[in-house]
Amino acid sequence: MEDAELRARLVTLEERVRRLEDQVAIHRLINTWGPAVDTGQAEAAAALFSEDAVLQSDMSHLTGPAAIADMVRSDGQRALIDQGSAHIPAFPVVDIEGDTARAIGYSRVYLHTDEGYEVWRVSANFWEFTRTRDGWRVSRRTNHVIDGGPQAQQLLGRWFEEHG
Amino acid sequence: MEDAELRARLVTLEERVRRLEDQVAIHRLINTWGPAVDTGQAEAAAALFSEDAVLQSDMSHLTGPAAIADMVRSDGQRALIDQGSAHIPAFPVVDIEGDTARAIGYSRVYLHTDEGYEVWRVSANFWEFTRTRDGWRVSRRTNHVIDGGPQAQQLLGRWFEEHG
Amino acid sequence: MEDAELRARLVTLEERVRRLEDQVAIHRLINTWGPAVDTGQAEAAAALFSEDAVLQSDMSHLTGPAAIADMVRSDGQRALIDQGSAHIPAFPVVDIEGDTARAIGYSRVYLHTDEGYEVWRVSANFWEFTRTRDGWRVSRRTNHVIDGGPQAQQLLGRWFEEHG
Repeated sequence: MEDAELRARLVTLEERVRRLEDQVAIHRLINTWGPAVDTGQAEAAAALFSEDAVLQSDMSHLTGPAAIADMVRSDGQRALIDQGSAHIPAFPVVDIEGDTARAIGYSRVYLHTDEGYEVWRVSANFWEFTRTRDGWRVSRRTNHVIDGGPQAQQLLGRWFEEHG
Repeated sequence: MEDAELRARLVTLEERVRRLEDQVAIHRLINTWGPAVDTGQAEAAAALFSEDAVLQSDMSHLTGPAAIADMVRSDGQRALIDQGSAHIPAFPVVDIEGDTARAIGYSRVYLHTDEGYEVWRVSANFWEFTRTRDGWRVSRRTNHVIDGGPQAQQLLGRWFEEHG
Repeated sequence: MEDAELRARLVTLEERVRRLEDQVAIHRLINTWGPAVDTGQAEAAAALFSEDAVLQSDMSHLTGPAAIADMVRSDGQRALIDQGSAHIPAFPVVDIEGDTARAIGYSRVYLHTDEGYEVWRVSANFWEFTRTRDGWRVSRRTNHVIDGGPQAQQLLGRWFEEHG
C-alpha cells in the first residue's frame, strides 16, 4: 500500500467517525433538555446553549443561557415540576455541515393529573447547533405547538424546502 | 507494523464505520416520514421508498412512490394536517445485513383536539430496507394498530422468531 | 508517515468506533424491552439482563433473568398484552466508560381502551450496563413514575449531580 493512499484513507475515516460522534453529541443536547427542566436543573439546562442562543416558542422568546436558566427557575416551571412533567423529544433528523448543524423533530410534554397523564403539548421544533471550543451547543431552538395552524407546518416545511 | 496487517485493520474499520453510517441513514428514513406527512410534503414522503416498495397498514395497501405520494395528497391526509397531526415513531431496533436491513418499532399519531391532544393511533411496525444506487430506501413497511389482537403481536413476534 | 504515528491513529480510531458501536448496542438493549414484553417474549426480555441484574420499579423489585422472565409470563403482564400495550422508551442519554455504562431517560406505557389510547404510565429511568463476554447487558434498571413526587426527580437529578 502506498503511503499516500494510506494517509488519505485514514483521514477520510477520521472525518467519517467525527461526523458520527457529532450526531451523538447533538442527540445528547436534544435529549438532556427534558431531564434538566423536569427536575429544575437550571444550570444544566442553560449549559446546553451557546452564549448568544435563542430559545423561541409560542410561550417565550429567550436569549442566552442566563435567561434560559431563569426560565427553568421560574414559578411556572416549578408548578409543572411539582405537578409531574416529562418533556420528551422524538428522535430527530439531524444535518451536520462542518461546525454547524440543524435538526427538526417533534417534542411532547406529558403532565401528571389526578386521572393519569395528559399530553399537554405536542410541538414541532427546528434546532440549530454550533461547534464551540467547549463542544456542540444549541444556538437556536424554535418551537411551535401543532394545532393545525400554519406556524408548525412552516417550521417543518422549511426543512424540506432547504433539502429540495 | 506489517503492510498486510495494516490493510486488514483499515478495511475492517471502513466496514464498521459504514455499518454505523447505515444505521444513521435508516434512522433518517424512519424519522423523516412524520414531518413529511404532517406537512403534506408528498414528494419528500414518497422519496423515502424504493420503486417497488409496499406500505401496508390496517388502513391501506400501497405500492410504489407514486401511490404513496397520492395518499399524502389525499383528502383524508389533508384533514389530519388541518386538524394538527404528529406522526412520531419510537426509537427502532435495526438489523443491517449487507445491502438490506430490517427494523421493528412503535409509532404513534397524536391529533390536536379542542381539549388538548389525543393519542389517536399506537402501532407496531416492521420495516424492510434496501440499499439502492441512490442510498437506502424503505422497501416495505407493515403497520398494525395495537389493540390486543394478534396482528400487531405477530408482527413484532416475527422479529424474535427470526432472531431466535 | 511514521509507523508509530500510523499505529497510534489506527488505535485511536478503533477505540472511537468501538465506543460508537457500544452506543448502538446499548440503545438496542433499551429499545428491545418494549417489543419483548408487549408480545410476551419472556426469554428475549430476560436475555437483555446480566445474571445479577436488578429491575426495580414502583411495582416490583426483581433480581436476575429468571425472575424477569417470570414477570413477563405473569397474569398481570398477560392482561396488559391482551388489552394492547406499548412500552415505549424515549431516546436516552448514555454515558460509556470502558466496560460499564449508564443512561437516563423516560419511558411510557400506552394502553388500548374502548375510547382510544390511554397514557397509563410515564416514568423516569436510570439504567446501568455492563459489558459481558456475550456483549452488553442491563445490570440495573430503576424506574419511577413521574407524579410530582421526589423519587423520579431524585433519580434523574442523580445524573446531573454525577456530571457536575
